[in-house]
Amino acid sequence: MRRIRLTVSYDGTDFHGWQVQPDRITIQSEMQRVFSEIEGAPVRVDASGRTDAGVHAIAQVAAVSMTNPIPCVNLRKAANRLLPTSIRVVDVVEAHPDFHPRFQAAAKTYEYRMFREETCPPFLRNYVCHWPRPLREDAMIALAPVLEGEHDFTAFAASDDADAKTKSGLPKSKVRRIFSSTMWREDGMLLYRVRGSGFLKHMVRNIMGVLIEAGKGNVDRASLEARLRPDSGIPAGPTAPPQGLFLLGVEYPAHSEIR
Amino acid sequence: MRRIRLTVSYDGTDFHGWQVQPDRITIQSEMQRVFSEIEGAPVRVDASGRTDAGVHAIAQVAAVSMTNPIPCVNLRKAANRLLPTSIRVVDVVEAHPDFHPRFQAAAKTYEYRMFREETCPPFLRNYVCHWPRPLREDAMIALAPVLEGEHDFTAFAASDDADAKTKSGLPKSKVRRIFSSTMWREDGMLLYRVRGSGFLKHMVRNIMGVLIEAGKGNVDRASLEARLRPDSGIPAGPTAPPQGLFLLGVEYPAHSEIR
Repeated sequence: MRRIRLTVSYDGTDFHGWQVQPDRITIQSEMQRVFSEIEGAPVRVDASGRTDAGVHAIAQVAAVSMTNPIPCVNLRKAANRLLPTSIRVVDVVEAHPDFHPRFQAAAKTYEYRMFREETCPPFLRNYVCHWPRPLREDAMIALAPVLEGEHDFTAFAASDDADAKTKSGLPKSKVRRIFSSTMWREDGMLLYRVRGSGFLKHMVRNIMGVLIEAGKGNVDRASLEARLRPDSGIPAGPTAPPQGLFLLGVEYPAHSEIR
Repeated sequence: MRRIRLTVSYDGTDFHGWQVQPDRITIQSEMQRVFSEIEGAPVRVDASGRTDAGVHAIAQVAAVSMTNPIPCVNLRKAANRLLPTSIRVVDVVEAHPDFHPRFQAAAKTYEYRMFREETCPPFLRNYVCHWPRPLREDAMIALAPVLEGEHDFTAFAASDDADAKTKSGLPKSKVRRIFSSTMWREDGMLLYRVRGSGFLKHMVRNIMGVLIEAGKGNVDRASLEARLRPDSGIPAGPTAPPQGLFLLGVEYPAHSEIR
């Protein structure tokens, strides 16, 4: 059985997120439909993580196990012929038989794009969060690096995920390491980029929501630091809308790939 | 009665073109719905010309007559609140009472965007014509300026428009003046920009179709020049797909606007 690593770019606008759901079109359901058709038998396609409805990916990483001996370059072309044009397989490589895109991910990078001018060009409407109202951008830019380091991100977890348990019944750790967290201005946009060891459900959108609160003057450095302490008891702030969020890429240890 | 000039940007993907059609959502029908709501009575919104289904506009020019005394800046904001985000009114100014966006247009500029790499990013799929197959781009670039000047463009008219008559029963003139016609390479794209006194139905897409034929080696300079002669008898070549086409702007004599 081959294990194949897929790099996938998608426009999340028309999908109910990555994960398969009954009676809904998701990116995973489209991928599984197409790779099952190529394999001639049902296959499962796993990704580095779920993305929410409306969230985009420049380079999501997924994996599929197949027996079909089709060369990687032909597999990419066949998949792109069968997939909707809103999903593109941009790279296909042979992986180690035990490669898993979620468990072995060493780092993920997300970008959040906020359009700051009064009128949002129609061509950007599905790819930015349009926020024309005043914000103290300097305060947001100054606070973004406060998130760097290892922290308990319970206050940035989705509310329906806050009490998640492991299979052995223990609370799932909400500790994650953020390697870099940066915000800057570019071309009428306020851009936020974050690279970390892993992210909780809604975590980037909740970070962005709290940074927006900082831009409104409702959150300062002390208040942001308090949210990063274990058992802060502070509920997650507003969740920024999905269409501004892009998964830029996923990093793996070098040995996970066979070229 | 005020005459108001509107500059409108739209993503044509989800509309059946500019012109009102029964039981279909068009850009004109959305504009008329919204401006009639603001006026409190039915109003008609005219544009510089129709755009086909799937064709986009960076700056279409339209006009509406209203009695509502709402200031221009408030009218723009009210319209954008009521319109879908795929249509944006980017400018509103008072116009001369006899301003007509079609009859008074002095020049229009279109751009056609062709994506030339093998895999089209999902975010571009509705905004380019994806053409990864080989083309003699140098030949296309060299032939684009041949269209400049005053020519009979019958061989570039839509087939259902070829025998159009004026109200007095005479054949409608297919003579148009092209001020500039240029093709160039940029960022994995082949871009074509054409500025002219006016354009027949499907004319830019048919020009692009013939330039693609030139890229395939099926049309040379002599053959292109023959199509520009009156009564060439050459039927219009293939019509390039709509989603690569953008109306960039419309020019008017300086007196048509009152600031």
